[in-house]
Amino acid sequence: MSLLVVGSVAFDAVETPFGKREKMLGGSATHFSLAASFFTNVRVVGVVGEDFGQAESEVFNKRGIDTTDIERIEAGKTFFWRGRYEYDLNTAHTLDTQLNVFADFKPKLSDAAKKARLVFLGNIQPDLQREVREQVKDAELVALDTMNYWIGSVRDSVIKTIRGVDVVIINDAEARQLTDEASLIRAARKILSWGLRALVIKRGEYGAALFTKDAYFALPAYPLEAVFDPTGAGDTFAGGFMGYLASQKEFDEAAMRRAMVFGSVMASFNVEEFGTERVARLNYDEINARFRAFKQITHFDDAPFDVIAAV
Amino acid sequence: MSLLVVGSVAFDAVETPFGKREKMLGGSATHFSLAASFFTNVRVVGVVGEDFGQAESEVFNKRGIDTTDIERIEAGKTFFWRGRYEYDLNTAHTLDTQLNVFADFKPKLSDAAKKARLVFLGNIQPDLQREVREQVKDAELVALDTMNYWIGSVRDSVIKTIRGVDVVIINDAEARQLTDEASLIRAARKILSWGLRALVIKRGEYGAALFTKDAYFALPAYPLEAVFDPTGAGDTFAGGFMGYLASQKEFDEAAMRRAMVFGSVMASFNVEEFGTERVARLNYDEINARFRAFKQITHFDDAPFDVIAAV
Repeated sequence: MSLLVVGSVAFDAVETPFGKREKMLGGSATHFSLAASFFTNVRVVGVVGEDFGQAESEVFNKRGIDTTDIERIEAGKTFFWRGRYEYDLNTAHTLDTQLNVFADFKPKLSDAAKKARLVFLGNIQPDLQREVREQVKDAELVALDTMNYWIGSVRDSVIKTIRGVDVVIINDAEARQLTDEASLIRAARKILSWGLRALVIKRGEYGAALFTKDAYFALPAYPLEAVFDPTGAGDTFAGGFMGYLASQKEFDEAAMRRAMVFGSVMASFNVEEFGTERVARLNYDEINARFRAFKQITHFDDAPFDVIAAV
Repeated sequence: MSLLVVGSVAFDAVETPFGKREKMLGGSATHFSLAASFFTNVRVVGVVGEDFGQAESEVFNKRGIDTTDIERIEAGKTFFWRGRYEYDLNTAHTLDTQLNVFADFKPKLSDAAKKARLVFLGNIQPDLQREVREQVKDAELVALDTMNYWIGSVRDSVIKTIRGVDVVIINDAEARQLTDEASLIRAARKILSWGLRALVIKRGEYGAALFTKDAYFALPAYPLEAVFDPTGAGDTFAGGFMGYLASQKEFDEAAMRRAMVFGSVMASFNVEEFGTERVARLNYDEINARFRAFKQITHFDDAPFDVIAAV
């Protein structure tokens, strides 16, 4: 088993300036696992209710994602989120959240799940993230995501959990909130000092940055004329990042940088259509074409200024 | 003569969280010409008052900048601006603006100035920019900057002026305001369609992007732990960009991309200290070391995903 993800499987109702969907498959573990499935074997630990049917299972099955560890509670309903994006698409306005079966979610890992080589702890209560982390002692790389809600309410637990993982993948506002630092670079250095191998900062339309002990890497976002639905972009990025790493023998700086690009590639596709629609039908030619586009977008000649040669 | 800049020469009073200066040399033409002077010969067209003394002239002279076309009005005072930056340093709060001799500024170009190979029209009234543009008919490349004030008050004149130049260098908010487009990519395409060879969008701490008819290039900002004083960063970027281009025989895509990097290099130094202090004493080793750092920061292997080789 290569990559394990623990997180939410949900139904989303989303309205953007481009249209709306009343009920579509969503959740952090869903977006993550779909993106990662192009690069490695993925297993999901999560919980759903009786309303989670064959059509939803099919989305996972078609991508070969192992859903054995998705618990199904017949007496309950699946986590539901309703949100609306305004004109600029940067901020989601939550209109309704029904935790349902997710309210009592206690991740249960099968023996197979405990043998995962890489683990992604999606955005759930940090104590639960730590419980999962303690069950995957042999994992070579464990990453986590978190959010402003947990940082604001149980910050100490968030930091304690971070101290037990290898990689943190969060957005810039969360990094600043977590450290009380206005400077993102200073915030990043502080978070790294909690014992991480790497810190990934997602910056939405501005791209993403990778901080390691000795290096800094920054990548712009793919230039899309229109973002159709940003829901799940962050988890899709993490899925591409972790999925690609799982395909590699070593998690060195070079591999992490390529993983940043594949994360950005997958996220750029995710926002082109509603929910999981675009990523679910991606193929390798499309993925690699966009990888090459990122190379084009960022390339410049390694030619420092030569006073003598100047006109 | 290689590069001509028309713009403000000013005194600034600036307060940042790190300290304050009551009167220091500033202005768009000052920051621009200092940065450009490392790459080419620069001539400034501007106006100053009787308070502009030997110490200020020395800053230009030391960098070999030709100030013959800076008009000196003995009965007047130099343009003065007072501003304060808050904790996050992203927004300047203007506390006082005294246009003084700048209020009646009518750029006067000497014969030598009219022969410039490249011209930068700094942020002045767009009708004046157009008057200057018409006097440099043989220039190979003319670029301009503008600002929210002109876009809001004389938008048609701004657009008319843009239609007469080759390159526009503005920030992302100005691009959106100019086109009424929320999507930066769409805004950029629209501005490009007004007949430009290239559009440069400055994004502050997120770097800068270059739009040409067939390509897109994006570069992150240099990762500074602390921005000391952002005053003049945009003009310093433009100075590095245009100065480097002036050192090149051709203004092709590759040269423009390297110019983007040198612009970013110079801007990153500018914000490390107050006003012109850091750039005024730069040397080529420092400039090229930071150019190489940008290459490090943005590099990743050109290695698309290989399903067969995956672990």
